[in-house]
Amino acid sequence: MKNICLAVSYDGTRYSGFQIQENASTIQGELEKALAALYKEKVRITGAGRTDAGVHARRQVVNFNAPIHIPVKQLPAAVNSLLPEDIVTTGARKVPDRFDARFDARGKIYTYTLDRSPYPQVLIRRYSFHCPDILDLDSIKQAAAILEGKHDFKAFQASGGTVEDTVRSLSRVRVSEIQRDQLLCFTFQGDGFLYRMVRLLTGSLLRVGRGRLRPEELGLALTGELPRAAGPTVPARGLCLERVIY
Amino acid sequence: MKNICLAVSYDGTRYSGFQIQENASTIQGELEKALAALYKEKVRITGAGRTDAGVHARRQVVNFNAPIHIPVKQLPAAVNSLLPEDIVTTGARKVPDRFDARFDARGKIYTYTLDRSPYPQVLIRRYSFHCPDILDLDSIKQAAAILEGKHDFKAFQASGGTVEDTVRSLSRVRVSEIQRDQLLCFTFQGDGFLYRMVRLLTGSLLRVGRGRLRPEELGLALTGELPRAAGPTVPARGLCLERVIY
Repeated sequence: MKNICLAVSYDGTRYSGFQIQENASTIQGELEKALAALYKEKVRITGAGRTDAGVHARRQVVNFNAPIHIPVKQLPAAVNSLLPEDIVTTGARKVPDRFDARFDARGKIYTYTLDRSPYPQVLIRRYSFHCPDILDLDSIKQAAAILEGKHDFKAFQASGGTVEDTVRSLSRVRVSEIQRDQLLCFTFQGDGFLYRMVRLLTGSLLRVGRGRLRPEELGLALTGELPRAAGPTVPARGLCLERVIY
Repeated sequence: MKNICLAVSYDGTRYSGFQIQENASTIQGELEKALAALYKEKVRITGAGRTDAGVHARRQVVNFNAPIHIPVKQLPAAVNSLLPEDIVTTGARKVPDRFDARFDARGKIYTYTLDRSPYPQVLIRRYSFHCPDILDLDSIKQAAAILEGKHDFKAFQASGGTVEDTVRSLSRVRVSEIQRDQLLCFTFQGDGFLYRMVRLLTGSLLRVGRGRLRPEELGLALTGELPRAAGPTVPARGLCLERVIY
């Protein structure tokens, strides 16, 4: 048995999230189906992050024990030929037996993309949230800076989140404008993320941008003094898992 | 009755083309359905270009006679609220009675997008054709220059095309590499295009890039000496109507 690691990208639009579920289409379900067809045996995968329904990934990481030897060079093309078109394996390599895509992840990078054009740009609609409102970018950048660092993000965990220790470190919250494409993109790099945390953080930053929340008030959500400063949750379509850091 | 002109963008993936058909989903069909719901009366539209099944548009132009007055400022939002998400009206204005979106068009700009990454980039998959092959860009650029100008593009009209006069002018055939995104983009600007002409031109340019056709041989397709130098037809998904020129 060899421990194999795959880089996987997907358009999450038509999936009920990463994690396998009965009677629902999931990324894990499709990957395990493809691998079972390839290896002629049930294969269980471990994913680095359990992205939610409708969330995309440019480079999710999974690992699994390969029942038989297939050269890693041939694996991506072989797996892709068995996957639906909206899930693509972009790399494969042999990793040490002890490697676990989930528990060995030291961090992740997510982006949230906002379409700032007056009417939705139809060719990026699946991968962005249309938000034509006037936004105060300076305030957003101030708030983003407040979010950076080690904090208790308890207020930024949606109900349904089951984690007890809600302290996380965000090493980077970047706000970048791509004016030519009328996009605004938030990049979140952290050692871990709570349930719907990125979408709640983005919702808060947008409230700041609209002048309905002061940047300092976001700080009060982090100290527990103003938990209602968190959110609302923005739609899944703008969210993308960019990279997993090991 | 007022003659109204709309700018319309669409993701053509799930449509059987622009032109209305019975028992098939079409862009024209969806637009006329939305306008009928808005005006409470049948509305017939004229489109600048009849894009094929699966082809996208960033700025298609249509016009129609409005049965009642609705301010043009409110039209895009009103129409969009009645359209499926993959068709978006981005502008509306009153035009002179004699204006005809199709016959008054002096030219069109189309792009064809190739995804040059080793495995398909899943978030642009719907809008690009995956072509990881090694291509000789210098030869492609030479061939593109040969295509520019006024020629008889008869060899570049797919069967099914019914036009008699097949002489067209291409004022620009541009080849641009967007290395950061691993894309190669062809831009075609012309006074008119024959049935599947852009996809046949792109297919020929790719054959040149693969070394299976010399740039000069493309010239022989234009003089009728080597009609088989045209094509093959590349998939619809990479094609986008960028703009209509009046």
